[in-house]
Amino acid sequence: MRIDLSYDGTAFYGWGVQKDLRSVQGEILRVFNFLTHSKVDIFVAGRTDAGVHARGQVIHVDLNQHQIDRLENPERLNRALPEDIRIHSMTVAPIGFDARFSALWRRYSYRVCDESTQMSPLERNHTLFHYKPLDIDAMNQAAQGLLGLQDFAAFCKPRDASTAMREVEYLKWHREKAACVMTVQADAFCHSMVRSIVGALIPVGDGRKPVGWPAEILAGRDRTLGPTVMPAHPLVLEEVGYPSEQDMSARQIITRSKRAQDEG
Amino acid sequence: MRIDLSYDGTAFYGWGVQKDLRSVQGEILRVFNFLTHSKVDIFVAGRTDAGVHARGQVIHVDLNQHQIDRLENPERLNRALPEDIRIHSMTVAPIGFDARFSALWRRYSYRVCDESTQMSPLERNHTLFHYKPLDIDAMNQAAQGLLGLQDFAAFCKPRDASTAMREVEYLKWHREKAACVMTVQADAFCHSMVRSIVGALIPVGDGRKPVGWPAEILAGRDRTLGPTVMPAHPLVLEEVGYPSEQDMSARQIITRSKRAQDEG
Repeated sequence: MRIDLSYDGTAFYGWGVQKDLRSVQGEILRVFNFLTHSKVDIFVAGRTDAGVHARGQVIHVDLNQHQIDRLENPERLNRALPEDIRIHSMTVAPIGFDARFSALWRRYSYRVCDESTQMSPLERNHTLFHYKPLDIDAMNQAAQGLLGLQDFAAFCKPRDASTAMREVEYLKWHREKAACVMTVQADAFCHSMVRSIVGALIPVGDGRKPVGWPAEILAGRDRTLGPTVMPAHPLVLEEVGYPSEQDMSARQIITRSKRAQDEG
Repeated sequence: MRIDLSYDGTAFYGWGVQKDLRSVQGEILRVFNFLTHSKVDIFVAGRTDAGVHARGQVIHVDLNQHQIDRLENPERLNRALPEDIRIHSMTVAPIGFDARFSALWRRYSYRVCDESTQMSPLERNHTLFHYKPLDIDAMNQAAQGLLGLQDFAAFCKPRDASTAMREVEYLKWHREKAACVMTVQADAFCHSMVRSIVGALIPVGDGRKPVGWPAEILAGRDRTLGPTVMPAHPLVLEEVGYPSEQDMSARQIITRSKRAQDEG
């Protein structure tokens, strides 16, 4: 089964189950196990850190017909789940579908308000306040240097086993009424990569660093000289893209071997 | 001084100062008194109940030049205020300006999601979940009967001293991606009036009551037979309208005498 869901990350210690800490995975497992009277495993497209939200997270779960009957429909799951997690849909996944390894791309957004008089209290749980005005054009110019297939080692938390080669397909800031919003899409992201990209572009936007600086530290590939990892709460996993049904099985085999130890 | 502000009502026991309870007015007074080293009074356009939010609240405060200098600018106030209140602007008000008595109209919104799979966790602090699908057209047809200058006694909390005559200038539901949003504008609202209007229209929207029902209970004028007062958290004070500067003084004199004991 493929399940699409959203959550408000504020009150979670991230996606993954942790002993004695509230996690998104933990809450979902609790409800699934309770409703199916059994123990199930769930697999996620993109593990999110503590405080990170999702509007378009995807999970898959292997269930027999008996378990599917017990889960019934998304409405039943939503009645059982806490209000900060909502299931949008629950469908039989195509053969070979894997929420993580079938994914072609992930898209995140990051929301920054650069004027204290424009901060919306109702959106503060997913908006960063930045004390200096941001130059969107400068940030977009700097973003050019982070596009394409590159080694993002300087933008990732050190993990010896894995490669930091990632392909950033889209990276752009735009202004919404009261905030600057960054949209970034890549085949996959390593740990803290989006928040490091924001940490590289904001100093350009507020004039502390030249436009060429983010590309420079990227080229340096030095994990210890990377940009500031920005706060988690303005970050939202917006959508995960998958291939058409016929391409699905092939894709899963390719990516599973390529990135066995990665975040996805 | 005229001050425009927003707040997230979730963590407040309403607008007005109450002993030992956190209120919007209380937080603002604390900061104003602290920054001006004096005791000031603030006057609000529309008192909001516990849990009600504002995107366009207006207050006025009488200050001497010394006090104005100490408040400096909205940025300074925002640094001192808690994050669930934001000041948008602070301007010298025209002569005769009174946040409450000069106001020509107030506009509120009320947000209801009628599909559990469409609930957005990030917006749940200002969205009501309704368990049955809503028919927007039926609600808009029923809303026609509540327009114009009428006696809203059946939609207001009993208060012997005051009249419940109010003029509803605009009342309409529209569908935004995931939710039905009601927008209502009137010269003024009596206590719990917007939430009673929602309580009258939702049973029409989900088919429990006929389209003519809201107008019927309005015509009954019976405060004890009014509609359900719906929850506060989906309600947002969006904007308060004022006359042009030259019409200001005249307006204040008229409304002050008309509604001395009302909510505004």
